[in-house]
Amino acid sequence: MAGTDRTKIDLAATLPAGPAVVLVEPQLAENVGSVARAMANFALADLRVVRAPGRTEAQGARTFAAGAHHVLEAARHFDSVPDAVADCSLVLATTARGRGQAKPVDAPDAAARLLAGHMASGEKAAILFGRERTGLENDEIALSHRVVTFPVNPAYASLNLGQAVLLMGYEWFKAATAAEVFAMPTRSPPGTHAELVSLFAHLEGELEEAGFFRSTAKRASMVRNLRNMIHRMEPTKQDLRTLHGIVAALVEGRPGPQGRGRTVLKPLRDVEED
Amino acid sequence: MAGTDRTKIDLAATLPAGPAVVLVEPQLAENVGSVARAMANFALADLRVVRAPGRTEAQGARTFAAGAHHVLEAARHFDSVPDAVADCSLVLATTARGRGQAKPVDAPDAAARLLAGHMASGEKAAILFGRERTGLENDEIALSHRVVTFPVNPAYASLNLGQAVLLMGYEWFKAATAAEVFAMPTRSPPGTHAELVSLFAHLEGELEEAGFFRSTAKRASMVRNLRNMIHRMEPTKQDLRTLHGIVAALVEGRPGPQGRGRTVLKPLRDVEED
Repeated sequence: MAGTDRTKIDLAATLPAGPAVVLVEPQLAENVGSVARAMANFALADLRVVRAPGRTEAQGARTFAAGAHHVLEAARHFDSVPDAVADCSLVLATTARGRGQAKPVDAPDAAARLLAGHMASGEKAAILFGRERTGLENDEIALSHRVVTFPVNPAYASLNLGQAVLLMGYEWFKAATAAEVFAMPTRSPPGTHAELVSLFAHLEGELEEAGFFRSTAKRASMVRNLRNMIHRMEPTKQDLRTLHGIVAALVEGRPGPQGRGRTVLKPLRDVEED
Repeated sequence: MAGTDRTKIDLAATLPAGPAVVLVEPQLAENVGSVARAMANFALADLRVVRAPGRTEAQGARTFAAGAHHVLEAARHFDSVPDAVADCSLVLATTARGRGQAKPVDAPDAAARLLAGHMASGEKAAILFGRERTGLENDEIALSHRVVTFPVNPAYASLNLGQAVLLMGYEWFKAATAAEVFAMPTRSPPGTHAELVSLFAHLEGELEEAGFFRSTAKRASMVRNLRNMIHRMEPTKQDLRTLHGIVAALVEGRPGPQGRGRTVLKPLRDVEED
């Protein structure tokens, strides 16, 4: 899935600043590296580490960061959670499951929308991620405004630190870039209705001659069905030319002893496409 | 974030069956292990591996699976992508960025809703994931109905295999556990991948004989384009029978002085639909 494109704009520069990712006493440098990689994928840059000095410089972190060294190098270290989030006006605590505190619990997507809305007005926010084995302590959760819990299969809930940050980063990125639209790659312009009708006439005329429609009674529903199939294809002008070419080739094109060697009616350049 | 709760119900047993995760020539056993772990988190169980025998048994896979051994042990191995998805009527190809093929491109959340709707009616579906360095080949993408692209920062797009499967699994789980799943309007059941391939073979064979493909060089892109057009139609089993009938009728059916009066191969009841 690797596909860094150096010619593409770095969205980190055009998006509103993302939330800080706060790792509380991470045990393995490799996990810190995975976190940096996940952050870079989703244009997050503000990594803060509580009580794990040196964890961002270890070789394991650099290896698992897979090139996201800028995130590791910009990381800041703190002695306590309150110090780490002192400048933030919204703090979310991630937990693997409900921890029974009287706080609103959000799924990652709802939390991300909340963060994006909050930060759009220039406020700072942070998401806390706990220790690999034991998560966040109750007092750390109590310092947060809200809780984020990941929807996973309860029988096998084993999100590691890198995966948890990946999911939050992904949802934050979706919320922050909500305007971006995914569309089909630009193709040739869509066929006009008249061009469609012309294909229907060509195809149905040939099928009529070939005896494809068994009876007048069946013909109407067969034609309707056929036109629906072609409509679902959403054919471009180019696609329609290709289809004309196919019909002509199948009817006329086969050279052979039975005299079916007439030339294809459509010039072949009309039925090619890159 | 570890938090497996053995007392909790295994949602895999209560959810509709999830899509198959198809890994095409994965290079590192560790990545196959990460994929199994990501699948287990989101109650996915159907792992299929193309041309990478032994990759699921390697120690690296077991280590990175972090307990999701049941997924590795149930994995099935195939020699080709068509074999791996032969029983599936919806095949999605994941790509790191646009690959310019004329197919609809979905973000993971939209793709997951599509999968959940499709599978709610008992149909099978698959998601293809390509090689670590090079992804899926164009011909493998052409075998798919739709493309899934992950929204990532273009300046740092470095999702690995385990991360990509994690994001798709997460979105599938959200869609499958959502209160409402919107199914497609009832039509005849969708064609399986094997049925699609059979139509491709029939149509392309006849076009080959008719001299439709001007040169070997053009053939590959013309075939890919043609398959994309048919995929976009999302043909049902009935539609595929109709298309076979049309090809046969155009090639064989026309009665006339040139001896083209052979009977249509498909009985007509196969090409009717209400």
